This record gives sequence, C-alpha cells and structure tokens, in this order.
Amino acid sequence: MAGLKRFFADGELSVGAEAVLSGDEFEHAKNVLRIAVGDEVMLLDGSGKEFSAIVSSVEKRRMVLNVVRADDGGREALTDVFLAFGYLKNADKNEFIVQKAVELGVKRIVAFSSQYSSAFMNENKLERLNKVAREAAKQCLRSVAPKVEYCSDLKSALLSVSEAKNKIFACEFQTESQTALGAITGSTALVVGSEGGFSKEEQKLSEALGFSSVTLGKRILRAETAAVALVSVAMFALGELGDGAGSEEKI
Amino acid sequence: MAGLKRFFADGELSVGAEAVLSGDEFEHAKNVLRIAVGDEVMLLDGSGKEFSAIVSSVEKRRMVLNVVRADDGGREALTDVFLAFGYLKNADKNEFIVQKAVELGVKRIVAFSSQYSSAFMNENKLERLNKVAREAAKQCLRSVAPKVEYCSDLKSALLSVSEAKNKIFACEFQTESQTALGAITGSTALVVGSEGGFSKEEQKLSEALGFSSVTLGKRILRAETAAVALVSVAMFALGELGDGAGSEEKI
Repeated sequence: MAGLKRFFADGELSVGAEAVLSGDEFEHAKNVLRIAVGDEVMLLDGSGKEFSAIVSSVEKRRMVLNVVRADDGGREALTDVFLAFGYLKNADKNEFIVQKAVELGVKRIVAFSSQYSSAFMNENKLERLNKVAREAAKQCLRSVAPKVEYCSDLKSALLSVSEAKNKIFACEFQTESQTALGAITGSTALVVGSEGGFSKEEQKLSEALGFSSVTLGKRILRAETAAVALVSVAMFALGELGDGAGSEEKI
Repeated sequence: MAGLKRFFADGELSVGAEAVLSGDEFEHAKNVLRIAVGDEVMLLDGSGKEFSAIVSSVEKRRMVLNVVRADDGGREALTDVFLAFGYLKNADKNEFIVQKAVELGVKRIVAFSSQYSSAFMNENKLERLNKVAREAAKQCLRSVAPKVEYCSDLKSALLSVSEAKNKIFACEFQTESQTALGAITGSTALVVGSEGGFSKEEQKLSEALGFSSVTLGKRILRAETAAVALVSVAMFALGELGDGAGSEEKI
C-alpha cells in the first residue's frame, strides 16, 4: 500500500540533481531496509514535494541518489494547524501526542512548560520528539515533517502560534466554550495543558493574547487524550479529516 | 481534583445497605491505596450512580462498607455511542483504543477479527481489556465502565452494534463519505478496521447491514489513531465533547 520507501534527504532536492542520505536516514535505509544500488526510493526535503530517486552509490556513511521525478505529495493539510501542548513527564505520552498530531496533519508542534507542569526538557528529548515526527510523517505519507519546538514558558508558546486566525485554548475548568470549535475556518492554533492543567492566571494570559477558551466536556480527559481529541475535532471542522465539515467551501 | 477514591463494588448498591469490594478492586484499595476502616470512598455498581461509603471492616479477601449516600454521577454521555474496532496485534494499541474510547464517553466496545486482521484473542486478553476499561472509567470519573466484548467475525460485530440510529463504517479506500459525520444526532455505532483495513466484500457487507462508509481523509492514519479520531469527531458532533455542536438541542 505504501509503495516506495520514504526518506528525508539532506538539503533541497531537484530533478536531475544528486541527493544524499546521511545520519539516521542513511542507517535506516542501508541497514534496516537493505536499500542498495539501483533501488528506487521516495525522497522528501520538507518542501511538500516528493522525489523519486535511484540509488547510485552506497558509501560508508552516506548514500548518493539521482533524483528522477518530482511530484506533489497531495497529503498535506490545506489549512495550517499548529499544536502547542504542555510537556508531560511521561516520555511515551509526549511521543504519542507528536505522532498523532503529525498523522492528523498538524503543521507545527510546540511543547511548553507551564505553571503546573514539572517535566524537564533537554536537547536529546527534543531531538527524540523530532525523530518521532519524521517517522510519523513518513508512515502516513506526508511529505513534510513538522518541526517540534520547545518553549520554556506558556507566554512564548502562545506567541509562537499566535499568527493563526483561530486561537483555541482548551481549559479544564472552562464550562462554556467561547468559540464554536465546529465552525472554524482558516489557520488554527490549538493549545492544551499538561497533567496539571492551567491556572486561572494562565487562562487570563491566553485571553489577553487573543485566545478563546474551550471546554472538552464533563469527563476528565488525560492530557494526551485531550490533545488528540482536540486536534481531531479541529481537523474535522476544517475539512481535513474526511470530507464532512468544511468540504463545501473547497469543492 | 478527583476527590474520593473510586471502586467498582460487587453487585447492586443501595443507600443504607452493605457493600463489598473483592478481587482486584479489594487488592487495589487495601494494598495500593491503603484504604482502612473508617475511610470514605466512592463506590460504583455500573448503574450510572455513585455511592459514598464508609469502610466498616477489612477482611482477608474483602472489604465491607456501609453505603451512606447516592448521587447522580453526571459524567456519562447523554447519547449512546458504540465502538467496534478491528482487534490489533499490538496489545498496547488495543488497550490504548479502549482507554481513550472510555475517556471519550463510549458506552459499549466490541473488538472483532476480520478478513485482514491476524491478531488472536483469548479470555485473558479480553479480561485485560475490560480491566483497562474499568481503570479508565474510574480515572475520568465515569460511573459506568463500558464492557468490552469480542466478536470473532465482522458480521457479528456489526450486528452487535446495529441497533444504533447512525451506523458509521470508516473505510480506508472510501473517498467520499456517505453520511455527514458532523451532523449526526442520536445513538451512533462507529466501526474501524485493524491494521489491514477492510476488504471490498466487508464494505459491501456493512452496507447491506445499513452502515454508511466514511473517509477519514487523505493521510494514512494508524488503526488506533483512526479509532480515537473517529470517536472524538462523533462525540463532538453529538455535543458530548465540549459544548460546540449539538448543544443547542440540549439546552
């Protein structure tokens, strides 16, 4: 079903030029998938395009390929959706949020620390989340792997996604949504908290920065469930998860 | 935030009567949470009500309590949503689907085997999934733990949820949804496949039984992502995940 194996190449790609796989992508191609000279693979450079390429040589630390064809991937969401989530203590849950957000089509992901979160981020953990994002992008046939960034406070996180038209702040103690999530159109920033949720001051801060608080209902959702549910609902509303809502505008 | 510790008691409960905790619930209460004589806990009997109770004695294999008060839990979804999912090879992913479906408010869960699924179910695995459902119900403060059932073929699974008003069949190769998922009202059955997806024959079978096929869009979602995304979208449409869609009818 998935067709050609997919890899993120170094630098920008163009038809007729050489491409190089190095690092993890090289190791995975050579040692796990046993890609060899003459094999055809699909290369991605994060531009949104997909490139067919033939392996011309396999060296000790890199693989060289000839790019033969470029295609529009066609799997990217038409609408920009950004997710900012409270960084969790449990590494698996952070990876889970990133993986599912990528599958569902999110364009940018920001993990942040906030008042009630006590998890500690470092370079290695952030690189690991970026690796999860790349793997998820390949698996769901996206041609762009969203970059995962880290903000050490909520304000920076909110500012980093505040260019979006819709700014949605999921708040555990909010009982009425300030915006109709089912009726959004255009670019959308989604913010969900960590295990501890948000403080009243943090909600006020979000309001001052133009975010609307929404409730996810009366059951207590785990942080990672809230993130995935919110992304699912927003993507559906935007016509990016099936053809239900929003599709009328596009046809 | 969660208040009193929650346990599923044996049998039906009523105010003024004795209640008994045994088995896993007893072990967890006594050995993990160190609940002792005189402590107050919240008991659930699956009726949808919550019962405050005081521990009167702790025996070797059971704990006896006096039920002092009954409350309407108020966390259950107002609409019946059933989820039937293709049983997966990876135990964690099955547990993940069950856990998230319970948090999101699903009332009944059916795992099934189908043409392209090769996972093997047994009594222990099914009991494990039911335990996951109970734990998730307690964690999200639901007062009913959905029962997880198993059907060894798709037809039985479809029939087991076909009393629902809306019958939704998520199909990987479907490009246009046959029903507007965002506009559903009333009881809803959601069906998603395993890693291998469904065959054309299985889709035909679902249509013959009154199910409408829907697409979840152009990205390839993992089976467990599809399940959680579909439940999220349906719950939102039904007004059960926040107050966005559907809430007008209820107020």
